[in-house]
Amino acid sequence: MSGDLLVVGSVAIDSVETPFGREEDAIGGSALYFSAAASLFARVRLVAVIGEDFPRASLGFLEEREVDLSGLARAPGRTFRWKGRYGFDLNDAQTLETHLNVFEEFDPVLGPEHRRAPFVFLANIDPDLQYRVLDQVDDPALIAADTMNFWIEGKRKALLRTLERVDLLVLNEAEARMLADEPNLVRASQVIRSWGPKGVVIKRGEYGALYFCDGHIFAAPAYPLEALCDPTGAGDSFAGGLMGYLASTGNVEPDNVRRAIVFGSAMASFNVEDFSFRRLQRLTYPEVAERFRQFKALTHFEAEM
Amino acid sequence: MSGDLLVVGSVAIDSVETPFGREEDAIGGSALYFSAAASLFARVRLVAVIGEDFPRASLGFLEEREVDLSGLARAPGRTFRWKGRYGFDLNDAQTLETHLNVFEEFDPVLGPEHRRAPFVFLANIDPDLQYRVLDQVDDPALIAADTMNFWIEGKRKALLRTLERVDLLVLNEAEARMLADEPNLVRASQVIRSWGPKGVVIKRGEYGALYFCDGHIFAAPAYPLEALCDPTGAGDSFAGGLMGYLASTGNVEPDNVRRAIVFGSAMASFNVEDFSFRRLQRLTYPEVAERFRQFKALTHFEAEM
Repeated sequence: MSGDLLVVGSVAIDSVETPFGREEDAIGGSALYFSAAASLFARVRLVAVIGEDFPRASLGFLEEREVDLSGLARAPGRTFRWKGRYGFDLNDAQTLETHLNVFEEFDPVLGPEHRRAPFVFLANIDPDLQYRVLDQVDDPALIAADTMNFWIEGKRKALLRTLERVDLLVLNEAEARMLADEPNLVRASQVIRSWGPKGVVIKRGEYGALYFCDGHIFAAPAYPLEALCDPTGAGDSFAGGLMGYLASTGNVEPDNVRRAIVFGSAMASFNVEDFSFRRLQRLTYPEVAERFRQFKALTHFEAEM
Repeated sequence: MSGDLLVVGSVAIDSVETPFGREEDAIGGSALYFSAAASLFARVRLVAVIGEDFPRASLGFLEEREVDLSGLARAPGRTFRWKGRYGFDLNDAQTLETHLNVFEEFDPVLGPEHRRAPFVFLANIDPDLQYRVLDQVDDPALIAADTMNFWIEGKRKALLRTLERVDLLVLNEAEARMLADEPNLVRASQVIRSWGPKGVVIKRGEYGALYFCDGHIFAAPAYPLEALCDPTGAGDSFAGGLMGYLASTGNVEPDNVRRAIVFGSAMASFNVEDFSFRRLQRLTYPEVAERFRQFKALTHFEAEM
């Protein structure tokens, strides 16, 4: 039952500074990073909003990968803008400026093709919007979602209502602790799973990811890179690889989610090798398959002699 | 070529406070935690010093595991004492008090049995002492060592001299970065390996461990525990499991070091489940073997379909 992958999230114009350089007014946003990664695996349908200032032509690389951009609405005003800085600890972004702009009035309306997508990813947006998306979809095989501290603190009730309908929650370590109000991640995942999601994937940046499902735990490392450049979009590339692989295989069993997490980790590792979309844009599937094999080598040990 | 395992390090009296309780005047120290873990695998010979106040009878559990304590000297004065506190982030100890006491004059003298041990672990002590130990040993199959920020900052030259003779360096993430003066761990391990050690194991607490050797990298997760109690000695238990397994198998090839790291991770995971030596003391080998299998399940994913 493989098939299309719907993503609803943000498209942005980012200005980013890291110890390795800076990038002014680059395209970005959760839905774009997700799509750039997922489109190497599956047919992606993107729903988001841009302003009048967005360089639409820069999305040619997504069209080449057959991403359906018919749900990318253009609204009067400026595009969502984010300005941030990373220090040597690339796990922590320091937000310098956020301007929601057209994103403030974003109210996703799905077309018939969007509604029928069997795989749905709700990127990090207002949980009320996430809920309204779920009201519009037919009966997907898998609904996954991301969230962030801003919603966990500010719209907890709405978030919990959305979570009841989510199969797989993908969030980072600090967010998991905050959401569950529990510092221990094993117990935090139990709390979160009691609210609806059958599976919880906890992203830990350079330390990899944990997947909790049904009493089983899977630990995936991050790929140890010699040169990291810009972590912007790493979490969304991770989710894109994960969901893209699930959509392409049509298999949502825990064993396949494990493989999908490794593909997600591979995509995140490529993403951080260069600024903005430079690496994902020139990335080919054979390179991804090769990195998947490197993950196998990275984690392999023989059973006891 | 399996055989005895010599450890030279500290034996201490610790007072520890964590969010889960406190322990006053408990036995501790790097050499003890190492021995408690390693003795489930191999014949351990311990060289260390205690003061007049040390409850020697409390080491009965090590004697039951045939740890050779003939190298545990008793000196006039008080035992090395450490007092520390952990917050909810159990990765970071806050040292409240350190009293070197008899440890200040520690100058290890090896007996004939100690000198012949084919596996040697230099726990975290003054690099000049580590060097003097290496002057006394015959030709071991493997020399491994630990160190810490205090020596990296204060006795860098002596440490580098010792490292020339070390095969496997085991240290934590922050120490690796400080020693190599390089924030990226892949590059830091290359720098360290250029100074002598063929292999470098980087401990990352609850995030597991990385092993660098000859262009290959191995990533092992930490075991996700539902209840952590006291992280004191986790790094030394890790090293004990690692070295104990290598000594018991007599195989120092990288593939076997990977397995050994998983055994080390297993021992660290048991150690933190209770205060002081309570968990290691009642631990049995079948439990260790079972946790090794759980690590296999924790990290397993099938190659691409």
